[in-house]
Amino acid sequence: MTQASAAPRGQGYPFSGLVVLDLSHIYNGPYATFLMAMAGAEVIKIEPHGGEHLRVRAGLGGAALPFAMLNGNKKSVTLNLKSERGRELFLQMVRSADVLVENFAPGVTERLGIGPEVLQAENPRLIYASSTGYGRSGPYRDYPAMDITVQAMSGIMSITGFPDSPPVKSGPALCDFFAGIHLYAGIATALYEREKTGKGRLVEVSMQEAVYASLSSNLALYHGSGGKVPVRTGNRHGGLAEAPYNVYPASDGHVAIICNNNRHFHALLNAMGREDLKDDSRFRDLKTRVAHIDEIDALVSAWTQQYTKAELVERLLAHRVPHAPVRDLGEVVNDPHMHARRSLQWINHPQYGRIVVQNSPIRYEGVPPMPLEPSSPLGAQNREVFCERLGLSEQEFEDLRREGVV
Amino acid sequence: MTQASAAPRGQGYPFSGLVVLDLSHIYNGPYATFLMAMAGAEVIKIEPHGGEHLRVRAGLGGAALPFAMLNGNKKSVTLNLKSERGRELFLQMVRSADVLVENFAPGVTERLGIGPEVLQAENPRLIYASSTGYGRSGPYRDYPAMDITVQAMSGIMSITGFPDSPPVKSGPALCDFFAGIHLYAGIATALYEREKTGKGRLVEVSMQEAVYASLSSNLALYHGSGGKVPVRTGNRHGGLAEAPYNVYPASDGHVAIICNNNRHFHALLNAMGREDLKDDSRFRDLKTRVAHIDEIDALVSAWTQQYTKAELVERLLAHRVPHAPVRDLGEVVNDPHMHARRSLQWINHPQYGRIVVQNSPIRYEGVPPMPLEPSSPLGAQNREVFCERLGLSEQEFEDLRREGVV
Repeated sequence: MTQASAAPRGQGYPFSGLVVLDLSHIYNGPYATFLMAMAGAEVIKIEPHGGEHLRVRAGLGGAALPFAMLNGNKKSVTLNLKSERGRELFLQMVRSADVLVENFAPGVTERLGIGPEVLQAENPRLIYASSTGYGRSGPYRDYPAMDITVQAMSGIMSITGFPDSPPVKSGPALCDFFAGIHLYAGIATALYEREKTGKGRLVEVSMQEAVYASLSSNLALYHGSGGKVPVRTGNRHGGLAEAPYNVYPASDGHVAIICNNNRHFHALLNAMGREDLKDDSRFRDLKTRVAHIDEIDALVSAWTQQYTKAELVERLLAHRVPHAPVRDLGEVVNDPHMHARRSLQWINHPQYGRIVVQNSPIRYEGVPPMPLEPSSPLGAQNREVFCERLGLSEQEFEDLRREGVV
Repeated sequence: MTQASAAPRGQGYPFSGLVVLDLSHIYNGPYATFLMAMAGAEVIKIEPHGGEHLRVRAGLGGAALPFAMLNGNKKSVTLNLKSERGRELFLQMVRSADVLVENFAPGVTERLGIGPEVLQAENPRLIYASSTGYGRSGPYRDYPAMDITVQAMSGIMSITGFPDSPPVKSGPALCDFFAGIHLYAGIATALYEREKTGKGRLVEVSMQEAVYASLSSNLALYHGSGGKVPVRTGNRHGGLAEAPYNVYPASDGHVAIICNNNRHFHALLNAMGREDLKDDSRFRDLKTRVAHIDEIDALVSAWTQQYTKAELVERLLAHRVPHAPVRDLGEVVNDPHMHARRSLQWINHPQYGRIVVQNSPIRYEGVPPMPLEPSSPLGAQNREVFCERLGLSEQEFEDLRREGVV
């Protein structure tokens, strides 16, 4: 791919000059490549005619916002990888790319004739990044994987929810996003290594493995109880090792309060005007408080429910008690703090209207946050990539378009 | 720091030869540095006398497993950073280190005289990596931050749980771990950049910002409804954009089933022996199915509750319907697939007994998973680091020990 422009995209940013080919879809791979774009890489999103699944759903109205959030600052091209000519064009792109990202089911790229061995033979410096539900090997390799199935398989559901309710999924699509950010991390690591060795790598992440460590508190409870399977702990500590630690009712919502130690607990008693309880033997230390967890939660609830969220926040802040109001998405999207930090920004998206999108959560001092570009319409950079970069003539390009290759 | 051994630690791994100073605690920073160790870096964990919070809790019995999971393959030293001599020794270490990782509250390292400006003056190649709850700037900078408070503030709780129940936290400590893996990702990116520029960077991640993108589906529902705040959707799709998509009762537990399209849905009808419903106008496509979501969930539940989890898995697999059993932590810890992939391994930990620990979820083809070393007892590498690496004499070391500096 010849460089048409003088200055590489993202000049001054860490990944300036890198070219990423992005075959990924929905959340997992696209989050990884979004973060690459926001670190300065040139990301070329390659989609089948009709667009990847999330773009299709965005067109139907259900997923415009996530599509726009995850695909800003990327170029969009269409390419039929099932056609021989499409595959050839793709291999031509691979020869001067740095990274290929895909999150197909295991075996898909091999069947298309663009598996890691083929691509690395074309370009030994290529980093081939693959994310799947359960990995490229092992007995569950071909088990169906989406965020909710991996939440079920990984134990997340079994530890989320109240003890007397059915298991419930975690609201965020955390299996998808944990895999996506681990994939980005693996790519960045392999890029660093390539500076030393001159060689690319196959980097692999599975959704199941990417979420395991986040179950640490509950795994501690499982282990500490000699393998007795823990019940769901609701809003109590996942290891049932701290109290007070819960979400307590306010008159107009809920507030989370957490006391890790006596300093926090005594601050809470001060806020409650219950200094008399500091000497109560039931509440002497973390261990005795955990032993009287129901009493302590009743005591705190009786106090919190007299006040609004805002009143509680004011009192708890003044007494330096760890806490937070439970906020809804309206409050989150309009969060003054994230907007002040330019983490969130309102943009006028040419296709999807006025929306809030996020910059990269990874910040580098000395470079301003990357200016946000709206996601491209499908194939918007076809001509730029296939004619200017790959050198197709106008006639060839039109022929390929007519044949459904590009 | 002089290199005492001939071959750098982790030879053949991507981060071979890198030295990481780790001031971090609990989950967030330690997960980042664990992944660095598993990619071949030499990680020196620097703790106050008594140990960091998680080690203290491990000693009390509550957190042995998470401590062991996150601190394997690291060296352990003690150092009193509040003493002038301790600070001097630390600055000496910084001069030949590549990365410093900390997840104190904003301002803590500055107060200790080891903030990013001081350290980068000592070593302009140093990457200073900082993770906090809300970031190093902005109106919420000093707001108290722990996993559960950020779950409340970030909107995670508001979208987790059943519509008729209170908000509930996601079981995993996902704010801590999302921040930790983003921090690792930022460090790896800055290391790559340093190969080009020769300069280190301050890399910053906040827990609040690191989880935002994972709310994508629910943000879509919020946006799509014109800013009407979505209720919690239980185990239904976070965007209420798919059906069937739920956790259904089995006779001995629960099974998640997801149909993204007609192919999946018709496969499910085949498995149920209800091919007659393919022509039912209520279930014609995704849109009509979502409009009849209660009917469809009742229909699927009536079928699933007749069978065990194992029977359902067998039928759903045979018909290629996306699904998964809801597994408990006992099943997860003993997962044959993760053990087959050597992602999980039983080890005999000298302090904590027979436990299951995890390797890095980031895999590089061509290098075997890094052999797992158990977490070190507090200060186990004091002599190695302070005498062999920093060049203290035996007498100086003993004096400093007596004075409570090391």
